[in-house]
Amino acid sequence: MAYFDVASSAPLHPVARQALQASLDEGWADPARLYREGRRARMLLDAAREAAAEAVGCRPDELTFTPSGTHAVHSGVAGALAGRRRAGRHLVVSEVEHSSVLHAAEAHEAANGSVTRVPVERTGAVVPEAYAGALREDTALACLQSANHEVGTVQPVAEVAEACRAAGVPLLVDAAQSLAWGPVEGGWSLLAASAHKWGGPAGVGLLAVRKGVRFAAQGPSDERESGRSAGFPNLPAVVAAAASLRAVREEAAAEAGRLRGLVERIRARVAASVPEVEVVGDPERRLPHLVTFSCLYVDGEALLHELDRSGFSVSSGSSCTSSTLTPSHVLRAMGVLSEGNVRISLPLGVAEADVDRFLEVLPGVVAGVRERLGAPVAGPAEDVSDAGGELVVDALGKRCPVPVIELAKVIGDVPVGGTVRVLADDAAARLDIPAWCQMRGQEYVGEEPADRGAAHVVRRLG
Amino acid sequence: MAYFDVASSAPLHPVARQALQASLDEGWADPARLYREGRRARMLLDAAREAAAEAVGCRPDELTFTPSGTHAVHSGVAGALAGRRRAGRHLVVSEVEHSSVLHAAEAHEAANGSVTRVPVERTGAVVPEAYAGALREDTALACLQSANHEVGTVQPVAEVAEACRAAGVPLLVDAAQSLAWGPVEGGWSLLAASAHKWGGPAGVGLLAVRKGVRFAAQGPSDERESGRSAGFPNLPAVVAAAASLRAVREEAAAEAGRLRGLVERIRARVAASVPEVEVVGDPERRLPHLVTFSCLYVDGEALLHELDRSGFSVSSGSSCTSSTLTPSHVLRAMGVLSEGNVRISLPLGVAEADVDRFLEVLPGVVAGVRERLGAPVAGPAEDVSDAGGELVVDALGKRCPVPVIELAKVIGDVPVGGTVRVLADDAAARLDIPAWCQMRGQEYVGEEPADRGAAHVVRRLG
Repeated sequence: MAYFDVASSAPLHPVARQALQASLDEGWADPARLYREGRRARMLLDAAREAAAEAVGCRPDELTFTPSGTHAVHSGVAGALAGRRRAGRHLVVSEVEHSSVLHAAEAHEAANGSVTRVPVERTGAVVPEAYAGALREDTALACLQSANHEVGTVQPVAEVAEACRAAGVPLLVDAAQSLAWGPVEGGWSLLAASAHKWGGPAGVGLLAVRKGVRFAAQGPSDERESGRSAGFPNLPAVVAAAASLRAVREEAAAEAGRLRGLVERIRARVAASVPEVEVVGDPERRLPHLVTFSCLYVDGEALLHELDRSGFSVSSGSSCTSSTLTPSHVLRAMGVLSEGNVRISLPLGVAEADVDRFLEVLPGVVAGVRERLGAPVAGPAEDVSDAGGELVVDALGKRCPVPVIELAKVIGDVPVGGTVRVLADDAAARLDIPAWCQMRGQEYVGEEPADRGAAHVVRRLG
Repeated sequence: MAYFDVASSAPLHPVARQALQASLDEGWADPARLYREGRRARMLLDAAREAAAEAVGCRPDELTFTPSGTHAVHSGVAGALAGRRRAGRHLVVSEVEHSSVLHAAEAHEAANGSVTRVPVERTGAVVPEAYAGALREDTALACLQSANHEVGTVQPVAEVAEACRAAGVPLLVDAAQSLAWGPVEGGWSLLAASAHKWGGPAGVGLLAVRKGVRFAAQGPSDERESGRSAGFPNLPAVVAAAASLRAVREEAAAEAGRLRGLVERIRARVAASVPEVEVVGDPERRLPHLVTFSCLYVDGEALLHELDRSGFSVSSGSSCTSSTLTPSHVLRAMGVLSEGNVRISLPLGVAEADVDRFLEVLPGVVAGVRERLGAPVAGPAEDVSDAGGELVVDALGKRCPVPVIELAKVIGDVPVGGTVRVLADDAAARLDIPAWCQMRGQEYVGEEPADRGAAHVVRRLG
């Protein structure tokens, strides 16, 4: 029973629970009212804002509480774009932002704004010079996460903030994944975060807008939270969020080294004990508690199911899990394997024994899933045809990871220097076949149009 | 220590507290995840949705949870207007809606939509025929509250819903004030509500959208809550909201008669024991627990302050309270006195003794405030001049209730049939001088432009 998915949502921290319960009695009234219950609520709200602002590294009057991190991002992006409308309607984001940022960018495009998505390196990090190169005369806002939510890579926020400052463009930092570990360095202009990611309650986001940043709140007007977040304040949760952020910061300082060591162990042991695996993300510039790897020839949903049965709760960016039919946009932007993807994000105080048990269980679980999928095996597969000297694998209608498995089965039948064409219509193939080639030392020649789906051409090098 | 302002926010109901605490352990994970913690959260969310839908009187798949009642209204209005954009861009609201509805209407106007605000009678109720008359070929949406939040008047929702049905226009009902007392009758299309109004936690609103109603959620896309409410769900609060709505409904059925009787007592005793008072709102078609009255020659802020000192927490729609400089739009639309306004909204289980103590204290508190303001007294005031046979009162720069007090001081000096001109630049004078004339049996001749503010002309009839 080990929960290794705090990057999705962390269990409520004991300090959050205490603060929540205490403020249920004191914090239910409207802080805008003048009677005693209202004054008490106002005092709680003011104290929570001061505590949270100190942890964020901003002034209390720069910080507003929103109903979620998603609301903080949506309101922050919309307000900053509107406030800088005279400068232009161009928005810069990285390709690996959280979906809330990318959805805000899509909404901006739908309203005839323009968006540049800055690519990332194979580690998941943007290159500051490339990011700076995306800034234009008409750029109204730039967005960059402090650290990636799927692979843990820390972004060069300070360098990008400096480039934005030089260009006169405000930078919004999505700090959802990193705020527990410390304030965001560098000269950011806006910052968004989410309490349930650090062990605070659901229902609380933070939006900081530095004094002097042009900002025009969008949507119907509302007098709450400086006009930046509509609706009756969720005061007990706000109090719990602020109190737990301070508590988590203290623990995180003590825990960072230990968790970093456990993640090192996972990175090393997974690479050594699971064949055909790719550990992704920057091995150094990363969050202390998060590690992600992908396993060739494995179906992500089956893997999660088996790990859950073994008592481990983890998540996956594979296409073959939950409701999505496309692989994680983060893995796609990094150009790494998406099949059999597993993200581990360790809670504060995680038992070392649980991590070790996971490492013991994992190789067998992966092997079991591979065996059931019939991969990898040597020898020709049944649906291989020799079409004029070139092997063709028909994987049409087959979902990840089957096209890659079929490819692996036949590569031994291809003469060195020869090619094989994999016909596939699963979106993940576009990512996973090139990733397989990189892992196996084969050449990905490219993709060609086909009657259905696409033909992925692979040349055997050895 | 009596809290009489549940129409602002109700203390947390014991059932809400229990459910919240229980679900803090079970409901912190992401209900979209497939592992055990996620599945548990999903079960809690589904159960809460079923319970809340039953109380609302809709199908579970018609109900979404939002971060607040304000969000429910804003999302409901924007989504319904966008969904019916082909029909037209005309919106109908009553003049006495909650500010969240009126702000949504203003946002629609700012986006070049058109809005008709249907007036109300002196009771605060719309006339169904008048409301029906506002519906047009290009009306995309109509909005009507189930009951007014400031005066308690119940609106003729069923009749208006029938008129909307006949015109093919969806009706959005803001049920924030009435949902604790029962489901909304009639054929509404959309419904919004807020949990902290019924004793649920802050941070939860309800938005119901009937199947078949055209609806296009606005803002950046998000897969949560059928795409109608973005952000990570506030699950423990949602569970507490649903559980407490059921519990409150049961208590409300038992309490309605008792509270109705207490409100009758307040209506009668206030009218009998406080001179120069107007009890407003419909005496019959009203919420069981809410009553509002206005006291001539009284400053609302001073009155609230004195009542708070005496241990009573109430609110006011007067202009001279909290941060606003204009009187309540509800009282203005009703054409009733706004000065010295007090709203009492009794909690479930309120002690009869507290109500009686309030009734004992009130006359003295009102008299004390009047005495300090020097009103009402007989004889000419100092700043009265006889300008060619007409008295002029210069109340420029003076705030509510001073202009009315000055008028009352001089009316005895005006010959019957003669007029007095009150020069005033306080927005409340425009409402309170006509209201004073109606209460005192004098004639309000009208308002004339003046160098500063306006001249309000009053004719003495007796």
